[in-house]
Amino acid sequence: MSETKMAESNGLRLLFDEPFYQPVANEVGVFMAAWGRRLPVMLKGPTGCGKTRFLEHMAWRLKRPVVTVACHEDLTSSDLVGRFLIEGDETVWQDGPLTKAVRAGAICYLDEIVEARTDTTVVIHPLTDHRRSLPIEKLGVEITAHPDFMLVISYNPGYQTVLKDLKPSTKQRFVGMNFNYPPADVETRIVMKEAGIDEARARALVAAAGKARNLKEQGLQEVTSTRALIYAGALMVAGLDALEACTVAIINPQTDDPELAEALLEIFRTFFPEQG
Amino acid sequence: MSETKMAESNGLRLLFDEPFYQPVANEVGVFMAAWGRRLPVMLKGPTGCGKTRFLEHMAWRLKRPVVTVACHEDLTSSDLVGRFLIEGDETVWQDGPLTKAVRAGAICYLDEIVEARTDTTVVIHPLTDHRRSLPIEKLGVEITAHPDFMLVISYNPGYQTVLKDLKPSTKQRFVGMNFNYPPADVETRIVMKEAGIDEARARALVAAAGKARNLKEQGLQEVTSTRALIYAGALMVAGLDALEACTVAIINPQTDDPELAEALLEIFRTFFPEQG
Amino acid sequence: MSETKMAESNGLRLLFDEPFYQPVANEVGVFMAAWGRRLPVMLKGPTGCGKTRFLEHMAWRLKRPVVTVACHEDLTSSDLVGRFLIEGDETVWQDGPLTKAVRAGAICYLDEIVEARTDTTVVIHPLTDHRRSLPIEKLGVEITAHPDFMLVISYNPGYQTVLKDLKPSTKQRFVGMNFNYPPADVETRIVMKEAGIDEARARALVAAAGKARNLKEQGLQEVTSTRALIYAGALMVAGLDALEACTVAIINPQTDDPELAEALLEIFRTFFPEQG
Amino acid sequence: MSETKMAESNGLRLLFDEPFYQPVANEVGVFMAAWGRRLPVMLKGPTGCGKTRFLEHMAWRLKRPVVTVACHEDLTSSDLVGRFLIEGDETVWQDGPLTKAVRAGAICYLDEIVEARTDTTVVIHPLTDHRRSLPIEKLGVEITAHPDFMLVISYNPGYQTVLKDLKPSTKQRFVGMNFNYPPADVETRIVMKEAGIDEARARALVAAAGKARNLKEQGLQEVTSTRALIYAGALMVAGLDALEACTVAIINPQTDDPELAEALLEIFRTFFPEQG
Amino acid sequence: MSETKMAESNGLRLLFDEPFYQPVANEVGVFMAAWGRRLPVMLKGPTGCGKTRFLEHMAWRLKRPVVTVACHEDLTSSDLVGRFLIEGDETVWQDGPLTKAVRAGAICYLDEIVEARTDTTVVIHPLTDHRRSLPIEKLGVEITAHPDFMLVISYNPGYQTVLKDLKPSTKQRFVGMNFNYPPADVETRIVMKEAGIDEARARALVAAAGKARNLKEQGLQEVTSTRALIYAGALMVAGLDALEACTVAIINPQTDDPELAEALLEIFRTFFPEQG
Amino acid sequence: MSETKMAESNGLRLLFDEPFYQPVANEVGVFMAAWGRRLPVMLKGPTGCGKTRFLEHMAWRLKRPVVTVACHEDLTSSDLVGRFLIEGDETVWQDGPLTKAVRAGAICYLDEIVEARTDTTVVIHPLTDHRRSLPIEKLGVEITAHPDFMLVISYNPGYQTVLKDLKPSTKQRFVGMNFNYPPADVETRIVMKEAGIDEARARALVAAAGKARNLKEQGLQEVTSTRALIYAGALMVAGLDALEACTVAIINPQTDDPELAEALLEIFRTFFPEQG
Repeated sequence: MSETKMAESNGLRLLFDEPFYQPVANEVGVFMAAWGRRLPVMLKGPTGCGKTRFLEHMAWRLKRPVVTVACHEDLTSSDLVGRFLIEGDETVWQDGPLTKAVRAGAICYLDEIVEARTDTTVVIHPLTDHRRSLPIEKLGVEITAHPDFMLVISYNPGYQTVLKDLKPSTKQRFVGMNFNYPPADVETRIVMKEAGIDEARARALVAAAGKARNLKEQGLQEVTSTRALIYAGALMVAGLDALEACTVAIINPQTDDPELAEALLEIFRTFFPEQG
Repeated sequence: MSETKMAESNGLRLLFDEPFYQPVANEVGVFMAAWGRRLPVMLKGPTGCGKTRFLEHMAWRLKRPVVTVACHEDLTSSDLVGRFLIEGDETVWQDGPLTKAVRAGAICYLDEIVEARTDTTVVIHPLTDHRRSLPIEKLGVEITAHPDFMLVISYNPGYQTVLKDLKPSTKQRFVGMNFNYPPADVETRIVMKEAGIDEARARALVAAAGKARNLKEQGLQEVTSTRALIYAGALMVAGLDALEACTVAIINPQTDDPELAEALLEIFRTFFPEQG
Repeated sequence: MSETKMAESNGLRLLFDEPFYQPVANEVGVFMAAWGRRLPVMLKGPTGCGKTRFLEHMAWRLKRPVVTVACHEDLTSSDLVGRFLIEGDETVWQDGPLTKAVRAGAICYLDEIVEARTDTTVVIHPLTDHRRSLPIEKLGVEITAHPDFMLVISYNPGYQTVLKDLKPSTKQRFVGMNFNYPPADVETRIVMKEAGIDEARARALVAAAGKARNLKEQGLQEVTSTRALIYAGALMVAGLDALEACTVAIINPQTDDPELAEALLEIFRTFFPEQG
Repeated sequence: MSETKMAESNGLRLLFDEPFYQPVANEVGVFMAAWGRRLPVMLKGPTGCGKTRFLEHMAWRLKRPVVTVACHEDLTSSDLVGRFLIEGDETVWQDGPLTKAVRAGAICYLDEIVEARTDTTVVIHPLTDHRRSLPIEKLGVEITAHPDFMLVISYNPGYQTVLKDLKPSTKQRFVGMNFNYPPADVETRIVMKEAGIDEARARALVAAAGKARNLKEQGLQEVTSTRALIYAGALMVAGLDALEACTVAIINPQTDDPELAEALLEIFRTFFPEQG
Repeated sequence: MSETKMAESNGLRLLFDEPFYQPVANEVGVFMAAWGRRLPVMLKGPTGCGKTRFLEHMAWRLKRPVVTVACHEDLTSSDLVGRFLIEGDETVWQDGPLTKAVRAGAICYLDEIVEARTDTTVVIHPLTDHRRSLPIEKLGVEITAHPDFMLVISYNPGYQTVLKDLKPSTKQRFVGMNFNYPPADVETRIVMKEAGIDEARARALVAAAGKARNLKEQGLQEVTSTRALIYAGALMVAGLDALEACTVAIINPQTDDPELAEALLEIFRTFFPEQG
Repeated sequence: MSETKMAESNGLRLLFDEPFYQPVANEVGVFMAAWGRRLPVMLKGPTGCGKTRFLEHMAWRLKRPVVTVACHEDLTSSDLVGRFLIEGDETVWQDGPLTKAVRAGAICYLDEIVEARTDTTVVIHPLTDHRRSLPIEKLGVEITAHPDFMLVISYNPGYQTVLKDLKPSTKQRFVGMNFNYPPADVETRIVMKEAGIDEARARALVAAAGKARNLKEQGLQEVTSTRALIYAGALMVAGLDALEACTVAIINPQTDDPELAEALLEIFRTFFPEQG
């Protein structure tokens, strides 16, 4: 819920305030090493564990603008590279977000690239090897990347299926950084800061989440995210009672199954007993 | 059947008269808390149980305009965000309904968003986290939401299949509010008010619906909605006899199976015996 | 084969002469009650049993123009609502048939709507509840229906499959009127009037059809329609002998299987023995 | 191979010379009766048995122009009805072949309509009942057919599958005329006339075809057509020896299986023994 | 590798030098007989066995220009017939290759027509019977073929599957000529001429190919083509040793399976023993 | 990571500096022989083994410009051949990369052509036989290739499936050169040069990779590429400890399975023991 200041120009965002990020291990060091060699990086991990935050934090550290593209099933290479638009009497070429980043030396962040159409995964290949170039077929040119350009993608291993996965040959073109939900102490501090809630309730939320995440084997598609904990805390601050806040922020979005919902509620009831 | 006055401008509707809504629990309080933090909200529940009514009621309370988009299989992100139109000599950008709401600080209600194409579910992601921004790829910009902008989606858990469901990572970005058909007393008052019928027949309709809803396990795809009860009441007021009204308003739309139809008719015959 | 006079303007048809319709039960009363409350109506029944006739008859009674749209697999919401056309230097909006009916207060008849693409079934939702409004996304407006607008759809229960059916939530938005082939006496009168044939042969055709319809369980996809009987009668009047007329008008169109064809012919031979 | 004179104007063909057609039963009488009432007609039968010839013969008899549309998987209703074209500064509507026939009172022949996309089969519905009208959705009008307009479709029962068949409700809108390969004497006369060959060899070809057609159960997808016999005769006249002519005109096009090819060749060898 | 001189104008190629073709049986006579009656011809046979060469040879003999279209999955009838292009202020019709051939009296060769979309196979039907006409739906006209127009298609029986095959009704519209790899003596002469290699090595290549072709039952999708033998010969002439030439020109392109590759290599080693 | 100088003009790249390539066998000789006869070449082998490097090296040797096209599922023949663009008042033809190479006598490299749509594989056929011509259907012309034009494609045998493979008839049109990961000594030298690392660690990386590649049978989709070894070396040079570098550069991108990851880590721990 915290606000970050940024300058935005032509789709490139430059962050002035440090985005809050709580390191867990050496992820800053690894990213800096990859940056030093301009190697492309793949952030692997479940939803809501802080990958986007980390990327924004690193962009702030490096003082590089960042271009974020949320990929989806209908995103094509033209959406990334650019297209011709008709303006009055003539067709005008308009750079896509990837091309802008390549030219300006920005960090291009392709979020959940595996969702995009296959032509996008291939268009980035020449950017990931010694060529560092972007072919723009519709213009018939191949542009060389700015020395400060860096490519970062995210990837959620829990979602991939036989039908939808990055090709091994694509994955091997990236340095892979594994992410996960933070340890309890770190997560507690994040919830406190983001939701503006006291430590006791933040700690209770994180402890309950730890129990709840063990229910994954019983049919939950995905475990409770840090973001959902922050929502619950924020709703408590806004005046809802703790169990109602946990129900609408954590349980309802996570399952339609009444028994699973009851099991989750039971867990949270243990940690917020005052509201029998 | 009641009419509500509203001002409409550019696709944004501002409601002047209070839309009738009969609260069942603390749904108004939960929504106000989410609004206070501008958290995105997901209304979960079966068809015809009042989700749209509730949303309009809250928009009236908050004095915010509302933009409703009925999602469907062919709805794309361009339908939401906007597109270029050719006007005379030049291409002109036209904001879509979501962009209008983001700029004007309206409530954007995406009805049955799971029906839409996947690119729409992803385009809303940056609006649901700390960024509160909408990337418009075709313009190459990312606009920051008006402070009063709020995103609300609806979701019918009974319809979801393996092929068509919101991704867990998307659901966890919303505060989830569960809805269901109202208790008998509340539903009776709704049928009376909406159909303009006397309490006795409204109560009989609701009681019969209670029995009929138990037939779900025997092959009905969905239970009798409050809306169908209102239709039946309205047709009685228009002069049809009670069983004929129940047949055309409730039974015929609900099943093509003669045996199920007969079983339903038997239930309604019990509550409207005068017309053996 | 009878002709009806009508005025046509801009796709709206106003019928001056009474279209022949022979009521079977209280269908006129039910339709009038639904019309009184402007409730949307769904006509359910097999092909060629008179649904379209009934609708045209009611439009004549109510002195309302009617707009008919034959739905099919490629019909989209744009076909119903309207689209932009390029005319000379500018793009001009052209209302679709549904929008015309909504503005003019006509009856809009969507024939076999289940065949249409899903975006059309959803676009009609706001027209079927208290809003009575039509959102036109491409214009960014939502127009309120004329007080005399009424929506009618047809639906053939024999055709629906798991893959292609109206959603229960859509069906429950309509008053459902069930249709079937008329009783023998009524059907005889229809065949006489429409084919211009004497009562004896009309009665023989209807009686044979009664027997033939019992063959459905033996592999016929659909039973003999009233329309096919009228065709056979018309061909007899045009000079074909009775069995040849029945063969080409009733049997050949109904089956490609020689044994089923022979079984059908045997039935008609019994009722038209003079032509052994 | 015979040539027919015709006048062609705007896609409508008017035939001046009688197209050769050898009647088998009362097909001329049945067609005349259907024409008298302007009932739509469906010609059913296998490939190459003379359906197109018959239709052209009837058009010549009735002195009506004919519009033929060879349907295929990608044929849409726009291909039949018409579309907007951009000409210089404005969009101009161009009638499709069906619309032309409807306006001019021609016979419209939709060859193998089951191959077309489903929207085409539905667009013809209003032309096949008492309305005799063609809705042109893109113009927003519905035009009434010229009194002499007639609709004819062809249909090959051997090809239909569960996935691709006319709906029973569509078939019942047509008078159905069954066609098959002609009797030996008739077929011999056709081969003589079309290939320009003597009676002895024509008779041998037809007799061999009779035997060959019995092989259908052994794996041939379709039996020898009259057209293939004419090709074989024509090649003999052009100087090929009889077995070589039968091999390239009849056997090679019919099967890729060496054993089936040998079995067919054995049959023809019996009837053309001089070329052991 | 030999060069042929040709004049090319507007997509029509007229060959001045005789393309080398070594007849195996009476294929020239059969083609001339079909040409005499302008019957359409289907060339059946495996890849690389000389079908295209034969066609070019016949075009040279007949002094007719030839238009070749390599068909593929996305080739539509518009690609063959023509389309409207926007030029400056107006739309201009541009003939496709088939239309050009029909007007100019050229031979139109549709290579592997079964790969094309189904609308192309149907558009050629009227060109293959007594009508010899090409309907151009978008222009609304039907043009009569030039007296010298001839249609030729190729067809590879080894590739056809249930999903992708010519309809029997289409095949029966063609005279079918079967092709196969030439006998050893003929093939040796072809390899000598085309690769510019001596007879001894050409004969060894052909003999080895004869053995290698027997491996088809052991998992090779297709047997060694004459073209591959020519490649191997050409690489030997260019200085590669024989086994290396056979490996890269024949074995590597034919299989990815190490055991099959070794088995093939063993065969070639027998015929080129000097390079143990 | 090494940089190569090149001149780029209109999509054609001419390399001035020798791209580093370490030959393993006679691949240079084979390619020169194919070039001498202008035979098309197919480079077969797994990802990251140096096929693209080899091609660039040969282009540099031959002093020919090279045009590289990364193929993907949505790449069509128009993307290769060219298309019409609207510029102001008229449509202008724009050559695609293949057409540019054909006209200019460049080497056209179609990377992973099997990914492209099928129309692209067929469009190259006439370029791979004696015709050496490129049909441009939309222009209605067929252009003859420049004498120095050469076509090269790459092909990864490990990826092909029944659904996605080059047709045997296409493969046999190419000279096939098999590639694989280089022998240990060669690979060590490559890693040293590309990553700028000392021989000891390069040798350890290569040795560990040799062991790791044996895990393929245990569930890895693809073995460790040379490129991943270079990444790991580069990160060590940038200051990461060896095991962390191997984890993020080699293990994380290769598997999501914790047990496989641990097994891989165990191997690398053996070769970099100092960092227990």
